[in-house]
Amino acid sequence: MVTTNGNGANGVNGTNGASAAERPSQNPYATVDNFLSNVGRFKIIESTLREGEQFANSFFDTETKIKIAQALDDFGVDYIELTSPAASEQSRLDCEKICALGLKAKILTHVRCHMDDARMACAIPGLSGLDIVIGTSSHLREHSHGKDMDHIRRTAVEVINYVKSQGLEVRFSSEDSFRSNLVDLLTIYHEVDKIGVNRVGIADTVGCASPRQVYDLVRTLRGVVSCDIGKTYSLQPKQCHFHDDTGCATANAFCALEAGATHIDTSVLGIGERNGITPLGGLMARMIVGDRDYVKSKYKLEKLKDIENLVASAVEINVPFNNPITGFCAFTHKAGIHAKAILNNPSTYEILNPSDFGLSRYVHFASRLTGWNAIKSRCEQLGLHMSDIEYKQCTAKVKALADIRKLTLDDTDAIIRNFHKNVTAGADVPLVEGLTQGEKRLLEEEEAVLDQAANKKAKLDSVAAGLPIDAANGV
Amino acid sequence: MVTTNGNGANGVNGTNGASAAERPSQNPYATVDNFLSNVGRFKIIESTLREGEQFANSFFDTETKIKIAQALDDFGVDYIELTSPAASEQSRLDCEKICALGLKAKILTHVRCHMDDARMACAIPGLSGLDIVIGTSSHLREHSHGKDMDHIRRTAVEVINYVKSQGLEVRFSSEDSFRSNLVDLLTIYHEVDKIGVNRVGIADTVGCASPRQVYDLVRTLRGVVSCDIGKTYSLQPKQCHFHDDTGCATANAFCALEAGATHIDTSVLGIGERNGITPLGGLMARMIVGDRDYVKSKYKLEKLKDIENLVASAVEINVPFNNPITGFCAFTHKAGIHAKAILNNPSTYEILNPSDFGLSRYVHFASRLTGWNAIKSRCEQLGLHMSDIEYKQCTAKVKALADIRKLTLDDTDAIIRNFHKNVTAGADVPLVEGLTQGEKRLLEEEEAVLDQAANKKAKLDSVAAGLPIDAANGV
Repeated sequence: MVTTNGNGANGVNGTNGASAAERPSQNPYATVDNFLSNVGRFKIIESTLREGEQFANSFFDTETKIKIAQALDDFGVDYIELTSPAASEQSRLDCEKICALGLKAKILTHVRCHMDDARMACAIPGLSGLDIVIGTSSHLREHSHGKDMDHIRRTAVEVINYVKSQGLEVRFSSEDSFRSNLVDLLTIYHEVDKIGVNRVGIADTVGCASPRQVYDLVRTLRGVVSCDIGKTYSLQPKQCHFHDDTGCATANAFCALEAGATHIDTSVLGIGERNGITPLGGLMARMIVGDRDYVKSKYKLEKLKDIENLVASAVEINVPFNNPITGFCAFTHKAGIHAKAILNNPSTYEILNPSDFGLSRYVHFASRLTGWNAIKSRCEQLGLHMSDIEYKQCTAKVKALADIRKLTLDDTDAIIRNFHKNVTAGADVPLVEGLTQGEKRLLEEEEAVLDQAANKKAKLDSVAAGLPIDAANGV
Repeated sequence: MVTTNGNGANGVNGTNGASAAERPSQNPYATVDNFLSNVGRFKIIESTLREGEQFANSFFDTETKIKIAQALDDFGVDYIELTSPAASEQSRLDCEKICALGLKAKILTHVRCHMDDARMACAIPGLSGLDIVIGTSSHLREHSHGKDMDHIRRTAVEVINYVKSQGLEVRFSSEDSFRSNLVDLLTIYHEVDKIGVNRVGIADTVGCASPRQVYDLVRTLRGVVSCDIGKTYSLQPKQCHFHDDTGCATANAFCALEAGATHIDTSVLGIGERNGITPLGGLMARMIVGDRDYVKSKYKLEKLKDIENLVASAVEINVPFNNPITGFCAFTHKAGIHAKAILNNPSTYEILNPSDFGLSRYVHFASRLTGWNAIKSRCEQLGLHMSDIEYKQCTAKVKALADIRKLTLDDTDAIIRNFHKNVTAGADVPLVEGLTQGEKRLLEEEEAVLDQAANKKAKLDSVAAGLPIDAANGV
């Protein structure tokens, strides 16, 4: 088994010296500054301790909740959202404990649009605000709470006025916003805006929204609300919450910010109901491409991996192999032409710089897709110097053997060392030990074909416009 | 440990009878038909056996390649893309074998824009076409192949003419399209279009593109190319390839189709270089929301899980916990208000219907976020009937115990059975066995608080506008 991983078990540990700071300006498609976009000034409402508690595997005891809250605070999130104190008595006690920690992040709790819940939340000392939510789509009005829009509006006004009278921040959000009637939505947002709600929220509760729908709805909302008067138009607080059922939660968050949203809900590893929401790490990956300086100045990116491990362990899951940034292969390069360019300049095949996250890149060379630049780089790491022709011959041997069976790093290093010994010291050792008779026969056949092809090519094409040895794919 | 999973280990197996066919028409934000969009007529170029071979863990032997190709063909993909025969001798032999299988899907191979590679590919009997690629960004021109745009254009024309002369389809793609100079891009696409290329491709090789950039570039491209003259304007073949480094690969594919792209590259579980590309399953999740009839008529969705398991096993990874559609919790509902609505009508909190994929939904009830509707549903499954007041009292007990310690399904069923026995048969059995002294004390404290709160509430608010017991979160 080839086990390339973040610990360098099977790869060339490449240079981290890429001048990544130059990348955005080199990108002709970099986000264009415009008066709508908040890509360079977004805030995070971190909901691992609310939405994340709705993940199937979650059971956070008090101690775990406190650890997670402290880690998120240290990372630099702006708000931490907690499960409603009305959910259970322990939920209420945990709210109190986290509010008493004295964190830099503001503490919110997420409650139904209901006076009972609002009263219970407002009684918690140290709480900064309430995120209030009610279903506005016909689906939820019919099958969940059964209330009509008039009732929703009256209740919202009562609850918002109450929370404000208690001196706390209040966010009003519709639920299932993207399947709600647009006129209903705009009407209620206009109404809650008039009475001075601090933020309005839209939520793609079922994960149905597509990026351009999100852009359109958020932009439309701008014309209707003016909460926090005195701020510039594009900074009107609009909080967005995206579920990931159709794989768009990170993209939707980005498009919402482009359209003027200000706050994005996240959870660590995206955990939440069903497949969860915009993941904190995924959002960091997306946003650092949008505005590297802002993201690096505001968040301790090198702590991301630890926070993810903390939460993964608490909910007993593995970090997905393809997790943004911290997946085990996020910075592993394999195809020959990728490896060649990465060794020249990492920004050719990387839009993210692993060192921004305290991580390293790896160039994978133990496969049939490898190229001679990757093998040369590995030889140099091993202190084995040869001519370019010899590196290419050595690469052909690695590729031939990788065709026969899966190579480990040790296998490949052995092939390289033995090839070097044969070439430089006139030895005649076998390149790899323990080949079966069948494997030996396959190898002989393969080498015969290669020799034949090389001779044919030399005849057909005396001008070498490239090196077939390096013809692995890669886009 | 609470182990809710797709096998029903810890949940109420809900009804699958939702009239899902009605959902799109109920959605006021459903994709608007427009003459640009190909959301309802896209094709898949499945690249698990090319891009997927560039995944760090991949080593596909011939037998595995054949199994994967057959499974993809059965699923209904339009094209299967294979590693270049120039990568290694075994790669060439495998191309030949897969072309000889007689699959319905057309077989492509993905080669550098180079005559040597094109000749080698065109010599393979039964191959339908070549996907040709060359780096056009300044990054790749400088650090990878070192060729200027004039050279690229000349080579592209030579290779395309050669492939066409051999009677095969040819796709020309730039690499790193979103960091390429727009004038360079349009110039070369215009040139290859004139000589009759079958498809043009754009590739977000580094995963930097955002959805609205994708929409804009694909739409711009429409004005420049007219390949396959005779087709309607919006059906001009444009193949798109998106890497997932910043979590946008699925969203970008959708936006490309909205802008008039026709073909999307996918791989099973998204495996590929680094964090891979648009996953086949993720694309299915996104597209079924866009055009359910088309997707269901064209692809055998109920085979998705098997294909993913086949590939996951071949590359020795776990299917991510949050994988689109097939993640273990993709259809698990936990919060009380979600569970209540799902039990009434699944489309309230589901945009995807699990039965479309041969899967089931689960309502998780063994947690402090549960609500009385979920508990009532479970009681009915267990054949234990009580009054609504009693279901609510039973729910309060479950929530109180779930505050004290993590509950398994068996724990929760025991609580329900014992509660029912006490209520209906006048028994006085403890609700759950094996509580420690500390846990018993915590439970007594919690129940005292609950009683106090219930009394206080009864005094304050004689009109019950809702049930605090059901106050779990959920957006």
